[in-house]
Amino acid sequence: MTVLKGMRVVEGSAFVAVPLAGMTLAQMGAEVIRFDRIGGGLDAGRWPLAPNGNSLFWAGMNKGKKSIAVDMKAAEGRELISQIITAPGDDAGMFLTNLRVRGWMDYETLSKAREDLVMVTLTGDRHGRPQVDYTVNPALGIPMMTGPEDSQEPVAHALPAWDLIAGNLCVSALLAAERHRLRGHGGQEVEIALKDVAAATLGHLGIIGDVSLNGADRGKAGNALYGAYGQDFLCADGRRVMVIGLTHRQWIGLVKATGLGDAIKGLEARLGLSLDDEGNRWRHRKAITAVFEPWFAARNVSDFEGTFNSAGLTWSEFRSVREAMSDDSDLSEDNPMFRAVKHPDTGTYLTPAHPAIFHGAPREAATAAPVLGANTEEILADIVGLSSASIGALFDKGLVDGPRTGAHKTAA
Amino acid sequence: MTVLKGMRVVEGSAFVAVPLAGMTLAQMGAEVIRFDRIGGGLDAGRWPLAPNGNSLFWAGMNKGKKSIAVDMKAAEGRELISQIITAPGDDAGMFLTNLRVRGWMDYETLSKAREDLVMVTLTGDRHGRPQVDYTVNPALGIPMMTGPEDSQEPVAHALPAWDLIAGNLCVSALLAAERHRLRGHGGQEVEIALKDVAAATLGHLGIIGDVSLNGADRGKAGNALYGAYGQDFLCADGRRVMVIGLTHRQWIGLVKATGLGDAIKGLEARLGLSLDDEGNRWRHRKAITAVFEPWFAARNVSDFEGTFNSAGLTWSEFRSVREAMSDDSDLSEDNPMFRAVKHPDTGTYLTPAHPAIFHGAPREAATAAPVLGANTEEILADIVGLSSASIGALFDKGLVDGPRTGAHKTAA
Repeated sequence: MTVLKGMRVVEGSAFVAVPLAGMTLAQMGAEVIRFDRIGGGLDAGRWPLAPNGNSLFWAGMNKGKKSIAVDMKAAEGRELISQIITAPGDDAGMFLTNLRVRGWMDYETLSKAREDLVMVTLTGDRHGRPQVDYTVNPALGIPMMTGPEDSQEPVAHALPAWDLIAGNLCVSALLAAERHRLRGHGGQEVEIALKDVAAATLGHLGIIGDVSLNGADRGKAGNALYGAYGQDFLCADGRRVMVIGLTHRQWIGLVKATGLGDAIKGLEARLGLSLDDEGNRWRHRKAITAVFEPWFAARNVSDFEGTFNSAGLTWSEFRSVREAMSDDSDLSEDNPMFRAVKHPDTGTYLTPAHPAIFHGAPREAATAAPVLGANTEEILADIVGLSSASIGALFDKGLVDGPRTGAHKTAA
Repeated sequence: MTVLKGMRVVEGSAFVAVPLAGMTLAQMGAEVIRFDRIGGGLDAGRWPLAPNGNSLFWAGMNKGKKSIAVDMKAAEGRELISQIITAPGDDAGMFLTNLRVRGWMDYETLSKAREDLVMVTLTGDRHGRPQVDYTVNPALGIPMMTGPEDSQEPVAHALPAWDLIAGNLCVSALLAAERHRLRGHGGQEVEIALKDVAAATLGHLGIIGDVSLNGADRGKAGNALYGAYGQDFLCADGRRVMVIGLTHRQWIGLVKATGLGDAIKGLEARLGLSLDDEGNRWRHRKAITAVFEPWFAARNVSDFEGTFNSAGLTWSEFRSVREAMSDDSDLSEDNPMFRAVKHPDTGTYLTPAHPAIFHGAPREAATAAPVLGANTEEILADIVGLSSASIGALFDKGLVDGPRTGAHKTAA
């Protein structure tokens, strides 16, 4: 059995963080029910898109979930969702959301129907203002630390990192709150603000302490590893590599594998200090780079990759995703985390399971995302307990929708 | 009581991911014991540093933990660590590590002393090769998507995002495995590879599907929001803002708040399409930006911030961390997540608690990191069950160390 088998979580969500949270739970074996309005929620058409126009993003974020589509403008539709969220069961009564609907979908109301509800709500900022990864990141300074050393321009990175971190915090917060409930302390609402996640992380990394005590912002340093040694180099074949000298062992290994020990010793003598100290490697990174640069410029990656790997160096090559998919078996079915999955809305492509290997429970193989509304009937029957006739009436009134219609096109 | 009160987790770690995992558990109320070699582990001096030379990074990553310093080169020291990891207790027997020490510290050996051990091991890649955030990120393509549209240079972002995500996955994996144990299924080892975390995330975001089905890499797009509309603009006062038109409501709100409805309608007429479609906003982002650009260039932020906020727009200003700390109350003690904490090794500065508010359990206020070895005596007495005399003998033999010596200097 998979590790969270038996747990049921309901999700009302859009975009990255909360959908990722639900999917992470689903990939650990939980039954996760995502509800959407008929035709799909705010992220139904989020890019990237498949050639047929359907959302690859949606398919990626909703793998392994069950989907129900309900008209929540109607009181009857809202009542169905409430019943699904608050349905009985020791391992149920858990709700993840970032929709922040006041009234029928807030904790106060839902917990009247199920007192021990565990509800995790992700908000923009602590004031309830809207925020997305793309606004939190500029507001908190990372783009001012990213990019070429000589540039004044902020560079926002392409990865929605704050959303991804916040989504994972939703998972652990839900598991922690359920653990608390299991120990007899009842249910609760847990609120997490995306901007607070980012602000706390700046603190955890020492960046707030740095500004507070040293009075200065961390500047841009190109692709260098901050605080020790790590640098990118262009090789003779036009490929670019990243090499790491963070720990003493990595540093010594790098110097040895390149055979530049004498040149580094010479540099230490000129500087009058030891580069065994990581702070010295950081302060004098340009001088170090000047020693290594001609070495890499004179070699192809194939000239040194064998040596670097046998020496256990920590290094990698810069690649695009496409290059990585063509060259790296970690991004292929050789990696048991991945398998080619046929997604009903988008097509067949390499799809990841949960990255963790739980040795006490088989890895849940990667599964497809549902078509929107794929599980409407099943959920209404099994969880709300409606008869076929009642379910038919809901479909007839247009209060719920199945997999055939809606914004999601059916893949050819 | 805090939400994880009573749980005990032992951590043998360095750098970002696993220390963050332990700290996140500590900030939810667990007792987290980090052990290090005498003098401190690989990250004892990780930058940024306080003016006194001690590590602000270490202080940030180890808040609220207990610290024990042990000579693990000696068999007797290793035995102490094993006993601490496998000590009895229903809510104990959990171990987080990225040290990958074969033999005495692996799951096979430790689980002989405690059969139901839950152990979460973070590795570099699935082959056991070393990887750090700075190597995984280039290998998987994000730097090729980051930076100015006209550039060919990879831009690695300053945030160790993969480490932060992996650390959070260690937290939820540990909680899921403990839940499984509590349900009678025993302990287990959980393995997570940093590179797999990144590779899986590319899949979740639809990026692997995009390359598979559309055959092309996502290009760089400067600071633009991918797939809909979101752009940075330089204002008359020299400040730069990020404005978001991801959802239809955000887009309409932006057009309305800037009073540029007619110009946008004109653009739609010229293009012969509706910008209500998010894909059209993405495809024609440059034309849209050309409409907005003069509007922002003619105004100071103070001219429109009130209007933007009352209209509920999603937007923010680019700032450095220092600017954010001086201008934004979310990065101050006004935010209950933060308080000024005196850290024994580094100084007093704004320090975050866990970002989640657990309404059923009081928020654990931010606490300091321990001095290395601060809890050595207490842990040997309470967990290993040694007498004062035995503990004294261990100190005399130099097998354990207390808070006074070691690499960490005492703050003035």
